[in-house]
Amino acid sequence: MEFTDLLKQIEFIKEVDKLKYILRKTKLINSDRNENDAEHSWHLCLMAFVLAGHANFPVDLLRVIKMLLIHDIVEIDAGDTFIYDTQKSHTNTEEERTAANRIFGLLPDEQAGELIAIWEEFEAGETHEAKFARAMDRLEPLLQNTSNQGGTWSEFGVTYEKVFAKKQVIRQGSETIWQYAEQLINDSVEKGILKK
Amino acid sequence: MEFTDLLKQIEFIKEVDKLKYILRKTKLINSDRNENDAEHSWHLCLMAFVLAGHANFPVDLLRVIKMLLIHDIVEIDAGDTFIYDTQKSHTNTEEERTAANRIFGLLPDEQAGELIAIWEEFEAGETHEAKFARAMDRLEPLLQNTSNQGGTWSEFGVTYEKVFAKKQVIRQGSETIWQYAEQLINDSVEKGILKK
Repeated sequence: MEFTDLLKQIEFIKEVDKLKYILRKTKLINSDRNENDAEHSWHLCLMAFVLAGHANFPVDLLRVIKMLLIHDIVEIDAGDTFIYDTQKSHTNTEEERTAANRIFGLLPDEQAGELIAIWEEFEAGETHEAKFARAMDRLEPLLQNTSNQGGTWSEFGVTYEKVFAKKQVIRQGSETIWQYAEQLINDSVEKGILKK
Repeated sequence: MEFTDLLKQIEFIKEVDKLKYILRKTKLINSDRNENDAEHSWHLCLMAFVLAGHANFPVDLLRVIKMLLIHDIVEIDAGDTFIYDTQKSHTNTEEERTAANRIFGLLPDEQAGELIAIWEEFEAGETHEAKFARAMDRLEPLLQNTSNQGGTWSEFGVTYEKVFAKKQVIRQGSETIWQYAEQLINDSVEKGILKK
């Protein structure tokens, strides 16, 4: 790689520092402090590393982690969309595509193309790697909400039926992790922190 | 993997959430907000992904990223040690080793052993992967301090000589990145934000 490539990469590295300011709706474990997208992304990567042996199919862990490192970067421009938002869909809006082109476009051309392709693969959710990565993205807030007396479920009146439907993404990545997640959801109903 | 393994892994995943509360001395780019260890770890992983082509030798990127994901986890128990601290050495203190055994020890035995070995490899800094990972860990605060009128250098009176010596770690990972870093250090002296 050339020195001129490095200068572009450094601009990208500085720009994505802004991900540390993008707040999610969910709060840290046993906490009332909102999580930001950078620490969220770190946690998902580590989860993928530790849990990869439970995937429904062999996965290329490096590709899974690459997806998780960059999956929320578009939110620097487009903002975080709450998964249970009924007004605005999370999936690949025009705003997010414009953000991907701008931010990944700071990189040398070939690398920009690679990162946009990885982001698109995550968004499409069709490959084994994307399915497992997306399962991680659904599992973390489940751990957070159940540790916080229902967390965003209570705060925004999200029902069991909606949670159950959204969390099916976990099942597509890992039947074993789904077995755990389903139990956690059912326990939450029993405890009264998730309403049917 | 067994379901009983998963339960141990979930305990580990919840425990390491605490990394989001460990504050570093350095501040975010153009900011007075301290960085936490989780977002720091995310940033280093992404830097390694984008900059791997500049390494002095071919590196196994997945192994580099595994190191960076977990390199600061011991600080949950042992706390962050400032790199220019003259009282306390950062390198593999007894306190950090005890922390590694406790936190990684939450995982199933075989996996605990794997993560402890990866952490030890990073600390030793001898393999190609460890050298490149450590270069990332030295580069990020350089970008932060130069964007913050000297940042921790000004705040704690750190001199050019000390910075120059500590940043040699970058050179061991990448001569190209060192070329950039050395220029940034020299520019900082010229601008008066780093004292000789």
